[in-house]
Amino acid sequence: MKRLLLVLLSIFVCLPAAAAEGMWMPSQLPEIEDELRATGLEIDPASLSKLTEHPMAAVVDLGGCSASFVSPQGLIVTNHHCVYGSLQYLSTPEKNLLREGFLAASLEDELPIGPGSRVRVTVDVSEVSAKVRKGLDGLDGAERYERIERRRKEMVAACEEDEGHRCRLFSFYGGLRYFLVKQLELRDVRMVYAPALSVGRFGGDVDNWMWPRHTGDFAFYRAYVGADGKAADHDESNVPYRPKHFLETSAAGVQDGGFVMVTGYPGSTGRYRLAAEVENTFTWSYPLRRRSFDRRLEIIDEHTRDRPDAKIKYASLVGGIQNANKNTQGMLDGYARSNMLERRRALEQELQAWIESSPAIREKHESSLRDLEALVKRQQADQERDRLLVTLRRSSMLSTAGTIYRLSREKELDDIDRDPSYQERNWERIEARMKRLDRRFDPVVDRALWRDSIEQYMTLPKDQRVAEFDEFLGLDEGLDGLDERLEKMYAKTRLDEVDRRLELLEATPDKIRSSKDPFLQLAVALYDFGRKREKEQEAIAGEFNALRPAYMETMLEFLRSKGSAVYPDANSSLRVTYGVVKGYSPRDGIQYEPFTRLEGIAEKFTGEEPFDSPARQMELIGKGKHGRFALESLGSVPVNFLSTVDTTGGNSGSPTLNGRAELVGLLFDGTYDSINSDWDFDERTTRAIHVDVRYMLWVMEHVDGAHHLLAELGVPSSI
Amino acid sequence: MKRLLLVLLSIFVCLPAAAAEGMWMPSQLPEIEDELRATGLEIDPASLSKLTEHPMAAVVDLGGCSASFVSPQGLIVTNHHCVYGSLQYLSTPEKNLLREGFLAASLEDELPIGPGSRVRVTVDVSEVSAKVRKGLDGLDGAERYERIERRRKEMVAACEEDEGHRCRLFSFYGGLRYFLVKQLELRDVRMVYAPALSVGRFGGDVDNWMWPRHTGDFAFYRAYVGADGKAADHDESNVPYRPKHFLETSAAGVQDGGFVMVTGYPGSTGRYRLAAEVENTFTWSYPLRRRSFDRRLEIIDEHTRDRPDAKIKYASLVGGIQNANKNTQGMLDGYARSNMLERRRALEQELQAWIESSPAIREKHESSLRDLEALVKRQQADQERDRLLVTLRRSSMLSTAGTIYRLSREKELDDIDRDPSYQERNWERIEARMKRLDRRFDPVVDRALWRDSIEQYMTLPKDQRVAEFDEFLGLDEGLDGLDERLEKMYAKTRLDEVDRRLELLEATPDKIRSSKDPFLQLAVALYDFGRKREKEQEAIAGEFNALRPAYMETMLEFLRSKGSAVYPDANSSLRVTYGVVKGYSPRDGIQYEPFTRLEGIAEKFTGEEPFDSPARQMELIGKGKHGRFALESLGSVPVNFLSTVDTTGGNSGSPTLNGRAELVGLLFDGTYDSINSDWDFDERTTRAIHVDVRYMLWVMEHVDGAHHLLAELGVPSSI
Repeated sequence: MKRLLLVLLSIFVCLPAAAAEGMWMPSQLPEIEDELRATGLEIDPASLSKLTEHPMAAVVDLGGCSASFVSPQGLIVTNHHCVYGSLQYLSTPEKNLLREGFLAASLEDELPIGPGSRVRVTVDVSEVSAKVRKGLDGLDGAERYERIERRRKEMVAACEEDEGHRCRLFSFYGGLRYFLVKQLELRDVRMVYAPALSVGRFGGDVDNWMWPRHTGDFAFYRAYVGADGKAADHDESNVPYRPKHFLETSAAGVQDGGFVMVTGYPGSTGRYRLAAEVENTFTWSYPLRRRSFDRRLEIIDEHTRDRPDAKIKYASLVGGIQNANKNTQGMLDGYARSNMLERRRALEQELQAWIESSPAIREKHESSLRDLEALVKRQQADQERDRLLVTLRRSSMLSTAGTIYRLSREKELDDIDRDPSYQERNWERIEARMKRLDRRFDPVVDRALWRDSIEQYMTLPKDQRVAEFDEFLGLDEGLDGLDERLEKMYAKTRLDEVDRRLELLEATPDKIRSSKDPFLQLAVALYDFGRKREKEQEAIAGEFNALRPAYMETMLEFLRSKGSAVYPDANSSLRVTYGVVKGYSPRDGIQYEPFTRLEGIAEKFTGEEPFDSPARQMELIGKGKHGRFALESLGSVPVNFLSTVDTTGGNSGSPTLNGRAELVGLLFDGTYDSINSDWDFDERTTRAIHVDVRYMLWVMEHVDGAHHLLAELGVPSSI
Repeated sequence: MKRLLLVLLSIFVCLPAAAAEGMWMPSQLPEIEDELRATGLEIDPASLSKLTEHPMAAVVDLGGCSASFVSPQGLIVTNHHCVYGSLQYLSTPEKNLLREGFLAASLEDELPIGPGSRVRVTVDVSEVSAKVRKGLDGLDGAERYERIERRRKEMVAACEEDEGHRCRLFSFYGGLRYFLVKQLELRDVRMVYAPALSVGRFGGDVDNWMWPRHTGDFAFYRAYVGADGKAADHDESNVPYRPKHFLETSAAGVQDGGFVMVTGYPGSTGRYRLAAEVENTFTWSYPLRRRSFDRRLEIIDEHTRDRPDAKIKYASLVGGIQNANKNTQGMLDGYARSNMLERRRALEQELQAWIESSPAIREKHESSLRDLEALVKRQQADQERDRLLVTLRRSSMLSTAGTIYRLSREKELDDIDRDPSYQERNWERIEARMKRLDRRFDPVVDRALWRDSIEQYMTLPKDQRVAEFDEFLGLDEGLDGLDERLEKMYAKTRLDEVDRRLELLEATPDKIRSSKDPFLQLAVALYDFGRKREKEQEAIAGEFNALRPAYMETMLEFLRSKGSAVYPDANSSLRVTYGVVKGYSPRDGIQYEPFTRLEGIAEKFTGEEPFDSPARQMELIGKGKHGRFALESLGSVPVNFLSTVDTTGGNSGSPTLNGRAELVGLLFDGTYDSINSDWDFDERTTRAIHVDVRYMLWVMEHVDGAHHLLAELGVPSSI
């Protein structure tokens, strides 16, 4: 049995030089120097841990996407799907940049991508664990949560006193360690070049998460600063930002088996979650999420059929739900074919055996696993109720009203005492949300979605329901008459008017309380209940914050006793992952090759989205025009490639680097078989999908004629 | 342009040693000796052209399937799907042999598979071209047809005077050459061994034509003869047939790249059809067939929903239509992605240029292409009418009545003057059809299908319709009242009773003409029209028989002038095809590996049909029990493999032989990408699918314990 456990464990814990599991904090890389060198890293691993040096200083954060500087003139490369919103914003009925693509002929022609655009450059990361955790012992959950939040706000405020910077406190290993990250925030970002939609999104949703892939998922921004070199709002007089470091572009790219590493901002993983949490997620949360997504898609479809305007307003939400739905199904499929739960349980058994293996270890770690497990179980006991209580707010009008009233209440406090979301530093975001609503809201759809949520909420026993809500909507006797009441509310509210919403952001609580708007009235009625629920949840979070770090400390000590370097779960902070270019077998009898070819575009081409392609590209492929960017062993220009690097959502747009830290591609997706790797990295099937730098350069040179950009990248055009 | 044509042509015509196009007549093999040896044949190619020698004498014809003797005791191996009907016949509610599989413990336990079972061993093939074609010149179409049919019947009758034999005249190259084939017909066939359905049909319709594949599509029969060694009907006293030659079984199997050949009875191909025929088939016939299939499936579904008994009766038809539908779609898909039509046209242009290249050639071949093309066009001009005239008989009751009345009329003639289908040698088949109907007929479904056909027929202009039919069904004024009339006909007819049908097979024309059965009345009314149509079609067939051989003579001379050996289109006669074990890339970025593994079964396993598997097999796979039949380079027991051999329907069950003519597997399918190869062999994507002999032996040894059969195969059990 011992031997079996070790075998199981070796799949879970990363070590062998060929394996690629691990989203490493840059500071950890010297720890795995041997593996990095053995896999093919040619530069000094220590250089990767210096955030203000090359190459790490070239990596930037777009908020939800990663990107990198690729020229001394502040040219930034990222995924097409990361600039998609900007292209939509810049498109007009007359000039559809999203569809046609865009290439600025010179600096003057580069287009500002609108307010709220941000490029963040990490300038400092400092560990503040002791400061955050000082004196927390003995506090109850609520107090503990409160104390940490207060410290978070104070540190962030102090850090952001340096103008033009944004700071964030990150928790690692479930709260065992804390790091304060300081980022320079560049606020004038401009669109430089994006290929046509039929290149940048070739394959669309059909190919999403799929291999073989042929997507030209790349685009270029440029960051601008004031003439003084400091971050500034958009202005004609601004000049291109001159980054201290930028990535060199390798026109030679990588070969099958070649070393690659990816630096970026992966969002979230659950690799150290307890077996009890894994089981609950895959047998309760995800199946419910799938059903809920399906239901919402059904409702939206039903109420937007034959209403093209409404359909457009919900297109983005529908796309998002479909994407998340495919992801959730991928999680479930991955779980079904793996023995992940058994391995997680076996690991915990082994951990417990280790805890009990010596008095010294027992004394320090005795109850860490069991205590956390007990808390997890306690939280799960109420999850059905918790879930249904959330549904009652599933109306854009009600959540908007809630935000407006909450803001008015928070404004009565000093900024440091406010809930973080309502601090002054976030008012701009709230305003942007209020403005955006018009383009994403239709009263008929919104009402139908809310109506359905209320019906679900009503399955709760009466004593678990919210008295204020029931009274306001007359739900005490059930759903009779609800439709009429909802209809009246939507008819009467003025929250569907953007000016009204913006005006209300300035209103006092009294003013809002005296409003006749039904949604504001309901938001006011629900306020105390909402705050109470929030406090309860904060108390639970505080309890987790006491127990999860203790558990992680035990786990880390255990894994280190086995000689393993251990990386923390992803948390949107800057990470480095490395691996090799490599295909895989998704099923017996099939091999996925590591590279796709130009000719594969022609194979998939139908002339209709998502398998359309620019005529020029089709002509070049038809003629076999491979040019200087072909990979000889492949007999064509490589379009996309697979690698073993360990990534997740948020990594999109990350530069893919070779062993000399030169740009050889962009990370833009993972395969369907990899979706589950957020929970369980399986080196046999987890593969990231990259757009190959050679395809990017080929499109720039032959399809779009972006010769001046090629020159800026140090790859002067040959034609 | 010349160069282009040659390139195109080289895809069309088989030559290079690595390519595998060609369903060769055994007598042709010495012509391609060099290619056979270069690819890996170790025995003398000349030995393959001797039908009464090893190994060809071991290959047998099951009628629609191929098979082979594999022991001196008359043991026969073929595909599970070729013995499927026998297993159904032998199954009872108490003992479901089809589901559970069957293994006779000894000769005494082997089960006769019922009347009509036949194993045919080819004993002689002689060319009779001169005899058939003598004096045909100058005859018109109808006379020509009549003359050939008369000769066919005479030759077959003479040949079949040798008791226990069945003879058939085959036309090759569209009637350019004729061969008379004589087969010994073994009539006592018994079921020896079939694995469980969940092995033999693993993957079912879902995996049909698909790769990767994991189907144990094999089973064993044994042929019995009288104590005197002669073919006999089933009798307890019969003894196992002792074939002069049988195949040795190779437990070592083949490797990737290894030589394989397949001997069997491929049904039909159209590789020498004109471009005009190709275009019409893919733009008119196949799309119409797809729509007609869909419509019929819809009607059957609609009328069997909630009627399980009716559903069972049509299950076989539905399965057949779905299969044919997938095949037709595969044809259309293959056509869409290929430039087959352009290549066929280019070939004809090159042919015409060759014809005009010298006076001698021109004199002999001048109009052969153009004449055939003109006839094809003439036939196509009426095809819509011809198609709709066929639909009016789409009722099992009407076609049964037609058969009964026709038989009574044919019986008035001497046997030699009868239509071949109604000659005495075929009466047994007619009787079997009459008996079978009960299990495949439901009046509600039959009526609905016919009703729909009549509606289609009614789209014909009145002057093209059949007056007798319209009058009988009161269609002159349209479809009003049709439903009532059909209802009455189905209520009144007694053709749905098997005894009545069998009784009517003995009836005289007068007796039938005086019957009150509405379907018999309609059949009588339609008789003259039907015979007239038949004569017209025979006349057309006679014209084709004059022009197609002339065209094929031109084509053959042209191809030979280029140094190509040329094989004839498949026509259900015995052929040999060779090639190598080889995977392929179905799409850019994907490779299909040449072998699948035991572990792939576990990957696909769901516990439900068609992905169920015997518990014993799952247990062995779980334990990694590979045993002596593993292929080391694969790390497992190979289940199925791909090869480049050139096959089509009818080849099912064919033995797959290595270079020493030992059994290494059974041909059982082609990949979806190969369906179109009936028209156009593409060596990059055409692959046959074989069950590997090592999987057969592994199942026999480890799953089913068929140790005595292993011994009989010369592979004594090791456990």
